[in-house]
Amino acid sequence: LRVGELSGRTGVSVASIKYYLREGMLAPGERTGPNQASYGEAHVRRLRLVRALLDVGGLSVAATKEVLAAVDDHTLSLHEVLGVTQDALVSGPEPIEDDATARARERMAALVARRGWWVDGRNPGWRAAIDILATVERLGHPELADAVDLYAEAMDGVAREEVGSVVAGAAREDAVEGAITGIVLGGALLSAVRAMAQENASARRLSTASAADHRPGD
Amino acid sequence: LRVGELSGRTGVSVASIKYYLREGMLAPGERTGPNQASYGEAHVRRLRLVRALLDVGGLSVAATKEVLAAVDDHTLSLHEVLGVTQDALVSGPEPIEDDATARARERMAALVARRGWWVDGRNPGWRAAIDILATVERLGHPELADAVDLYAEAMDGVAREEVGSVVAGAAREDAVEGAITGIVLGGALLSAVRAMAQENASARRLSTASAADHRPGD
Repeated sequence: LRVGELSGRTGVSVASIKYYLREGMLAPGERTGPNQASYGEAHVRRLRLVRALLDVGGLSVAATKEVLAAVDDHTLSLHEVLGVTQDALVSGPEPIEDDATARARERMAALVARRGWWVDGRNPGWRAAIDILATVERLGHPELADAVDLYAEAMDGVAREEVGSVVAGAAREDAVEGAITGIVLGGALLSAVRAMAQENASARRLSTASAADHRPGD
Repeated sequence: LRVGELSGRTGVSVASIKYYLREGMLAPGERTGPNQASYGEAHVRRLRLVRALLDVGGLSVAATKEVLAAVDDHTLSLHEVLGVTQDALVSGPEPIEDDATARARERMAALVARRGWWVDGRNPGWRAAIDILATVERLGHPELADAVDLYAEAMDGVAREEVGSVVAGAAREDAVEGAITGIVLGGALLSAVRAMAQENASARRLSTASAADHRPGD
């Protein structure tokens, strides 16, 4: 495929394709002339992954580059690629050290112990959860801290299924792509479904409308 | 409080405070001189909320402004503020209309019917979920589509608790702030806990390390 055909096949503009090539997110095509290159199915596939991470998953260009570098580094295990992808998805600065942070850390440590989770301190979720719990305490809305056990219970079951379905995959490339899709787009899907479930719960409790007003449109 | 004291109390720089004032995210202080104003506890509280939404919740400035405008519009019901906040959190373009999108819409409509959810087509999660399912089909990783029921089941229980705890709140301002914190920071907390649960599930299945290597650090 020429670059114009690659663009037609994927719906990605030629300008964007050239940008991804410059940034190393897409491997160069095979040179076929002084100013021409030819692209194959691997390029189509990679472009779709790039756009899914950026547009649908909401990752930044920098985060997408890190994830793709991990995919292409065949010395990394699946577990390691999963870690890099989580870092890209769940980011945040180091929490400020104050009393609220100390209490949040204690609370999260107790949760991890209670659930018997194997999680180490470099997990981006560990750091982010501490920061969030400390923030809601400072905001005077500690209700959310009570939800953390509920979230942990829900995510425990979800994560087992998610990881199980990845392991079931065969070839490394496929397993890695499946894992990344699952982590990034799965996170977006979970948020989407949560918004729907919240509307349902809220509509049933707070609104005066009837069920007939609540259908996704025909 | 003078602006410098407001900065000291909240840890937000004077430059940022001035930016939020210009953008209408923070109400002007009471004029005390030609170039001076005085700020109160409501400003401290609002600044903390602004920073929580931006830094911890990961909302954009534009999204944060929309959410705050809804908070300040006392003609909006709690259910409506909740909707605005979801729009700010779960965004995304209209899905491209193709066969994958049509199949994804059908699948989501069946899920909504099966669960008996009251959700209308303007819910941002509805649109986002369709886009995500269509994307994973185009990527050749339809595994995620099988996870949507699992997600829906998990989020159904979570959302009921979340909405229930908001309704329990009393005064409008407090209930609204609690709802926003719950939706935005709750979403971030859920992602954080998911990353931890995934590490646990992945470590137990994929790695050769022992439990002793997996503690959040002493």
